[in-house]
Amino acid sequence: MIVVMNPGASEEQLQHVVKMVEEMGLTSHIIRGTNRTVVAAVGDKRMVDKGAIENAPGVEKIVPILAPFKVASREVKPEPTIVEIGPAKTPIGGTSPIGVIAGPCSIEDRSQLLDLAEQIKASGAIALRGGAFKPRTSPYSFQGLAEEGLEYLAEARERTGLAVVTEVLTVTHVEMVAQYADVLQIGARNMQNFFLLRAVGEQPKPVLLKRGMSAGMDEFLLAAEYIISAGNKNVILCERGIRTFEEYVRNTLALTIIPAIKRVSHLPIIADPTHGTGHQWLVEPMSMAAVAAGADGLIIEVHPDPEHAMTDAAQQINPQAFTQLMQRTTRIAQAVDRSMAFLKTIS
Amino acid sequence: MIVVMNPGASEEQLQHVVKMVEEMGLTSHIIRGTNRTVVAAVGDKRMVDKGAIENAPGVEKIVPILAPFKVASREVKPEPTIVEIGPAKTPIGGTSPIGVIAGPCSIEDRSQLLDLAEQIKASGAIALRGGAFKPRTSPYSFQGLAEEGLEYLAEARERTGLAVVTEVLTVTHVEMVAQYADVLQIGARNMQNFFLLRAVGEQPKPVLLKRGMSAGMDEFLLAAEYIISAGNKNVILCERGIRTFEEYVRNTLALTIIPAIKRVSHLPIIADPTHGTGHQWLVEPMSMAAVAAGADGLIIEVHPDPEHAMTDAAQQINPQAFTQLMQRTTRIAQAVDRSMAFLKTIS
Amino acid sequence: MIVVMNPGASEEQLQHVVKMVEEMGLTSHIIRGTNRTVVAAVGDKRMVDKGAIENAPGVEKIVPILAPFKVASREVKPEPTIVEIGPAKTPIGGTSPIGVIAGPCSIEDRSQLLDLAEQIKASGAIALRGGAFKPRTSPYSFQGLAEEGLEYLAEARERTGLAVVTEVLTVTHVEMVAQYADVLQIGARNMQNFFLLRAVGEQPKPVLLKRGMSAGMDEFLLAAEYIISAGNKNVILCERGIRTFEEYVRNTLALTIIPAIKRVSHLPIIADPTHGTGHQWLVEPMSMAAVAAGADGLIIEVHPDPEHAMTDAAQQINPQAFTQLMQRTTRIAQAVDRSMAFLKTIS
Amino acid sequence: MIVVMNPGASEEQLQHVVKMVEEMGLTSHIIRGTNRTVVAAVGDKRMVDKGAIENAPGVEKIVPILAPFKVASREVKPEPTIVEIGPAKTPIGGTSPIGVIAGPCSIEDRSQLLDLAEQIKASGAIALRGGAFKPRTSPYSFQGLAEEGLEYLAEARERTGLAVVTEVLTVTHVEMVAQYADVLQIGARNMQNFFLLRAVGEQPKPVLLKRGMSAGMDEFLLAAEYIISAGNKNVILCERGIRTFEEYVRNTLALTIIPAIKRVSHLPIIADPTHGTGHQWLVEPMSMAAVAAGADGLIIEVHPDPEHAMTDAAQQINPQAFTQLMQRTTRIAQAVDRSMAFLKTIS
Repeated sequence: MIVVMNPGASEEQLQHVVKMVEEMGLTSHIIRGTNRTVVAAVGDKRMVDKGAIENAPGVEKIVPILAPFKVASREVKPEPTIVEIGPAKTPIGGTSPIGVIAGPCSIEDRSQLLDLAEQIKASGAIALRGGAFKPRTSPYSFQGLAEEGLEYLAEARERTGLAVVTEVLTVTHVEMVAQYADVLQIGARNMQNFFLLRAVGEQPKPVLLKRGMSAGMDEFLLAAEYIISAGNKNVILCERGIRTFEEYVRNTLALTIIPAIKRVSHLPIIADPTHGTGHQWLVEPMSMAAVAAGADGLIIEVHPDPEHAMTDAAQQINPQAFTQLMQRTTRIAQAVDRSMAFLKTIS
Repeated sequence: MIVVMNPGASEEQLQHVVKMVEEMGLTSHIIRGTNRTVVAAVGDKRMVDKGAIENAPGVEKIVPILAPFKVASREVKPEPTIVEIGPAKTPIGGTSPIGVIAGPCSIEDRSQLLDLAEQIKASGAIALRGGAFKPRTSPYSFQGLAEEGLEYLAEARERTGLAVVTEVLTVTHVEMVAQYADVLQIGARNMQNFFLLRAVGEQPKPVLLKRGMSAGMDEFLLAAEYIISAGNKNVILCERGIRTFEEYVRNTLALTIIPAIKRVSHLPIIADPTHGTGHQWLVEPMSMAAVAAGADGLIIEVHPDPEHAMTDAAQQINPQAFTQLMQRTTRIAQAVDRSMAFLKTIS
Repeated sequence: MIVVMNPGASEEQLQHVVKMVEEMGLTSHIIRGTNRTVVAAVGDKRMVDKGAIENAPGVEKIVPILAPFKVASREVKPEPTIVEIGPAKTPIGGTSPIGVIAGPCSIEDRSQLLDLAEQIKASGAIALRGGAFKPRTSPYSFQGLAEEGLEYLAEARERTGLAVVTEVLTVTHVEMVAQYADVLQIGARNMQNFFLLRAVGEQPKPVLLKRGMSAGMDEFLLAAEYIISAGNKNVILCERGIRTFEEYVRNTLALTIIPAIKRVSHLPIIADPTHGTGHQWLVEPMSMAAVAAGADGLIIEVHPDPEHAMTDAAQQINPQAFTQLMQRTTRIAQAVDRSMAFLKTIS
Repeated sequence: MIVVMNPGASEEQLQHVVKMVEEMGLTSHIIRGTNRTVVAAVGDKRMVDKGAIENAPGVEKIVPILAPFKVASREVKPEPTIVEIGPAKTPIGGTSPIGVIAGPCSIEDRSQLLDLAEQIKASGAIALRGGAFKPRTSPYSFQGLAEEGLEYLAEARERTGLAVVTEVLTVTHVEMVAQYADVLQIGARNMQNFFLLRAVGEQPKPVLLKRGMSAGMDEFLLAAEYIISAGNKNVILCERGIRTFEEYVRNTLALTIIPAIKRVSHLPIIADPTHGTGHQWLVEPMSMAAVAAGADGLIIEVHPDPEHAMTDAAQQINPQAFTQLMQRTTRIAQAVDRSMAFLKTIS
């Protein structure tokens, strides 16, 4: 941390800052510049709130030097984390093939889900997604089939071997959802629901952590840090669009975070071009762009009949469009020297 | 809802849209314009996902007409909601005096809290805030005193008569927190934690609902709608800053939402200039601006010794600064023909 | 500037950075921390692009310490700048009374403008605004009366004594506009039109510089720095709303920049609640909030018949609404120990 | 346009709105819904400011139906525009090969530029970029070599056959820059400098129009509309990143605008991953992603010695990195069934 003093700060104010720095267990170095005196505070005290110093007399601002995350960083663990998901233990991360998770926004009907699972498997998906509990902006919207939906997902896994990915919305559901799912998804709206992060960190199933709509990269990795520091190393990050002024999309898919995360963190990161754009006609090109940018996988909403979907109808694609998306994305994967993951048969 | 057809949409596509609209229980009116044909869909079906129509062939886009919230709107309830808080039943909302809630970011020490409660009461606050459970971005930061902190708050209320406002972070805590607190606060990070919204909606204590960092006005009111539709009408909204590109503040305090909310909703709205700016030297001017813009109250972080605060040290003010803030804000309140709330003595 | 080295940076890489720093004419100090080595570069070289160092091997990032602006800063000039405008030399800035500039978005008609000028003067405005050249987002929109409009403004000044404020859009117009106007306005879209900034800096009339829609505080002050360093010290800043995700306003009026600018700069700053909100019903409360936050003045669009305005009709208020706004704002001004400016009669 | 009336609007207010709509030359249709009465106004009057209606009594809001741009739209011109640039008339747009423009941020030295031109040509670029006049945020930064720089660019074209792309900053430079350049670039900061847009529209050289930092898609296309409606159809759009809260990049590269523009407009669109990210290590992956998303070309800053670049040093890549970028991007181009443009030899 660097403490920048005001131009007119007194020697006494400077010494007070030095004292505060040292009370925090840090070592201080005073550098007297042409226009400013700064105090460099040395030591790794990520757990101390250093904002206090900003309140001390004569202080202009403080500038952090160390990234706030630790166990999610490449510094602590240089080699990439590879997360294995589902009965086939399909690896995600590092140089593993690109894994695609597909399925409806919400689970609406048993036979429809089972049919769809077969279709997406045939097109090359390695996991089935589907919402049993839905976080709906409006209390009047369809809220999901709850545990019944989880049973259908499990049944689809039995039949196809696909891994099951589903969202968990609240601490009290973690145990139940973990009984059915192979991967617990934390939605964008819960990225800073710290009790929930800890709860999924204390169970062993892999976690798919979506970036919050207005989360910076540091905050995103700190959310992962909560899960890891609670004991669960199997975290897959997911970029799903951020909130900006752009009017032609529901969210702005910020693909640059993919290579940026890979530079500082060992965690795998996938992209969600469905929520990341909000329109079905944008899902295919942005899937291709995400893989070109280095994504380790994709999560795509596919519905057998999007016109009659009960939720997020505007952004779901149908199985035919998904098949084409997979074909085109496979070519991009090859162009970046990666293949597409396929589902190993379990004997 | 207005469905806008593509310029080259066929008559068949148009009739398909009409059919979809009518299947939703809505009446359709076709308007053939110079460049576009549109279908106006009439009827109040806020609970139907109309996105499906965007996926139908020949459709360019859909444009909603009705606001998505209902029970939070002035249409349904024109007169302002007045929420009474604490043992003194201090009213917030309508033309009630402006109520100020003050206290430390987190509760750190019993005697310190009791002293502070006396001080803020003397300066004119009507409620004491304090975090017992802290939603911290980093897992390494101080996480709060938990139930012990709630006990100190309750003790402070006993001694001073101040109402107690504290945050509830997870569904499983609602019952416990409601035993101690007069007002349950839902933090910005939980504004779309729909299970938590429902849980505080199902208990009787008033709720202080903070706006999410990237929540639009409609989303903010829909979050309130969750609480109200679960049975609890006593919702106080709170603007606490939004996430933008601005680099000199932690958040951008968007005060315009105050008169904008008052136009469409009957709910009271207060401002949080502490989190809304992130710097102690900005709290006073933005408190004054908030009251000038029509805020029904303020929530301010006050700490006896901000330099040694364990959390959010940079943005907390000390009791002396709070006293001055109250004096200056009182003058603004008078200039908008409102007074400052004071704590009635309970006999 | 602080150069942060990568965790594994070699001694050779460190020495290479030290050499680069010294080639820039800066002094270097190496600080070896627990997790990072940093190089503090001391000296005031705001004109050198230090980004090059970020490209050197072993460098993680660079962190600037000095604000990039200089002549606009309080460091260089601690006392506030007071800008005198118009024939009455009404002062703006420091502890001067609050000056209100009012008038139509665009000048449409001579007699209408002259009548309006009398009305706004009667309500307490000290300057008349009006667009002669209009920066319109669409090429099909009304583009203004050009020089004819400027003549009407000058005639209105003759009759009323009001100062004339009007926008200059391009370098080739500066001389002509300066012949008629008392204050040259640089619009938000031109805040980084550096040739135009220099051109208005090379003539003597005061400049009203609006903040760009996505300009940070540093960029805003650097734009002022262009004008001042070209020779013109009479710069008045203006907050007019920034672009965010907010959907209920045209822009988000970021009033916090008012006290923030006053902390670091000596320049006066006013607010534009008309463009800052985009809706006429928000102009009055946000005018009041701006003055409470410390604004040195306001600029308000007033039109005799907003329903028939040729531009920006939704956001202009009528003269009756302006009179009420002035009365209410006067009370806020008094509550912050300031008065409203009035137009001195020139004998 | 749809005019939405307030719930309690009177019949008289409704008729007043109908009258206003008809005065604008539009036809009105009244639709009486369950909760709202709306007036649909039919006709193509993109040039009329309809905001006035928002000010009429009883009106809640107005909702536009037609996109505000016209000659830039696919409706008016369904087939893609192909722009031919430079002596080799390299086509950009439609299904043409992907054209890459490369060169230094600013022109610093003649022989360095000539060498670099040969190098980027050898790697497959079809045009040379270089700034002769630099729009610098700070007045203390290097401002470019001016006309001397343009001469060097022209000399490089003579030697290599590369097209020359350079920025024009102000109306008075258009004629001079057009003498040297093959493509006139309008920078992000000038996207709404309407006089400049018109000036480049009145000359025949193709225009590269960069998206403003906070421009929506409609505003971007309206800026193109200014150029086209002034007589110049040869407009190439360029996504170069938008301003958001993201802290790890200088701008957020919003690649989704590429397929979105292609849906509504016939204009070619390229990407600028240099300014779009601000860090040299992000340029390659985001170039690949842009081509995968459908970009018609790229513009990349390449400097022979980025460590000693006088401007934008942190984001320029060296010629070796550019060669690798071209190789990797070629593979992505092939994966989307496009090739990379190459420079035809002019005999």
